[in-house]
Amino acid sequence: MTYCVAMKLADGLVMASDSRTNAGVDHVATFCKMTVLEKPGEEVIVLLSAGNLATTQSTVSLLRRRLKTEQDNLFTQTSMYDVACLVGETLREVIERDSSKVPAQSGVDFGSSFLLGGQIAGEEPCLFNIYPQGNFIEATADTPYFQIGESKYGKPILDRVVTHETSLSEAAKCVLISFDSTIKSNVSVGLPIDLLCYHRDTLAVTEKHRVLDSNPYFQSIRRAWSEGLRSLFAQLPDPDWQ
Amino acid sequence: MTYCVAMKLADGLVMASDSRTNAGVDHVATFCKMTVLEKPGEEVIVLLSAGNLATTQSTVSLLRRRLKTEQDNLFTQTSMYDVACLVGETLREVIERDSSKVPAQSGVDFGSSFLLGGQIAGEEPCLFNIYPQGNFIEATADTPYFQIGESKYGKPILDRVVTHETSLSEAAKCVLISFDSTIKSNVSVGLPIDLLCYHRDTLAVTEKHRVLDSNPYFQSIRRAWSEGLRSLFAQLPDPDWQ
Repeated sequence: MTYCVAMKLADGLVMASDSRTNAGVDHVATFCKMTVLEKPGEEVIVLLSAGNLATTQSTVSLLRRRLKTEQDNLFTQTSMYDVACLVGETLREVIERDSSKVPAQSGVDFGSSFLLGGQIAGEEPCLFNIYPQGNFIEATADTPYFQIGESKYGKPILDRVVTHETSLSEAAKCVLISFDSTIKSNVSVGLPIDLLCYHRDTLAVTEKHRVLDSNPYFQSIRRAWSEGLRSLFAQLPDPDWQ
Repeated sequence: MTYCVAMKLADGLVMASDSRTNAGVDHVATFCKMTVLEKPGEEVIVLLSAGNLATTQSTVSLLRRRLKTEQDNLFTQTSMYDVACLVGETLREVIERDSSKVPAQSGVDFGSSFLLGGQIAGEEPCLFNIYPQGNFIEATADTPYFQIGESKYGKPILDRVVTHETSLSEAAKCVLISFDSTIKSNVSVGLPIDLLCYHRDTLAVTEKHRVLDSNPYFQSIRRAWSEGLRSLFAQLPDPDWQ
């Protein structure tokens, strides 16, 4: 499985992905699920992916290759909306290509989805959730975050903490706590975490981290959160039904 | 959807279920998903149910009716293992009866599952997770709790707090926090919560509560938990990547 989360906030974007993949429990591997495409000063495009790894890798490979071979490519779009359309089209193309060769009864799921975030000069930063069907929805101030993959374990803390006004560093902290809860409860999501904070209007990626188990900051907040939760829980009064 | 959780602890059992059902978002209703069958001094049998409501209701109705009409019924079993077999058989009978009348392509899911907890005089308390196929697994000291339905949102707090040695009242508190997280993140799970604490070897149900939104204890721990989480989160240091 996979866990990816992305937020569109007043100050910019926070995006993060785990890096565990599995085809059955006896075939577990590590793949980065974050793709960053950047033209400093002009545009920043970030993709997080979940679902069939062959589909997501092919989609990203075609998008990258076509930067050189096609006139109509990710870097020639004039808005993030058009970038989302192109990613959705390419995703649909790969799914159609690969699934058309396989009998429907094979039961293989070729589906994948993407979180697409970024900014093009002259536009606001944008965040899209692109479905396997190639269509997509966009984050707004009301619903500032999207998740794909194993989203449920890590959702309660996001729901409690994140609003459109949350600062990037607080949001990054919340993302790491959300990953910690997910990783604790589900072995199909695993470290390292790729974490990116995009500061609006910088049109460059200045803050991107690969968070390993040995990361001192991640270690310290995991421990403090775990101990804090236990002690908070212990302080709650026991049931008194009278 | 549904959320049910049950724990087998050193001191007894804690079992809880929500009471929201839905057939589409425009058909939401309230049904109790906890069934208690009791012969004080001899045995206590508690069922929590998730899945197709027609299936779970029919299964419980048949089990209840057969207490009077059949010699081989829930109260004539000599062990909780045999009770689990009988519940599993009856569940299978209902699913087969109802699904055999409907073409497979209809896409209706007749499946349901049960958490079965209880104790028969002379035996240890037991807890089983009964699958739609009628087979089941039993909780042990290593894995003292089971969940059915919308289990993911409320799992992290259980994983952090509950062990076989947790007291019944602490476990009940943890169950309520787990429900709070689930209810906050998923509208298909809703109040009231039916909560039962069974003290081992009492062979009687002495502590059973219907927890409404207005319940002062539930209100107070929800508020304290929510505020405590926010303040704990605020106390964690912001990322320092150097």
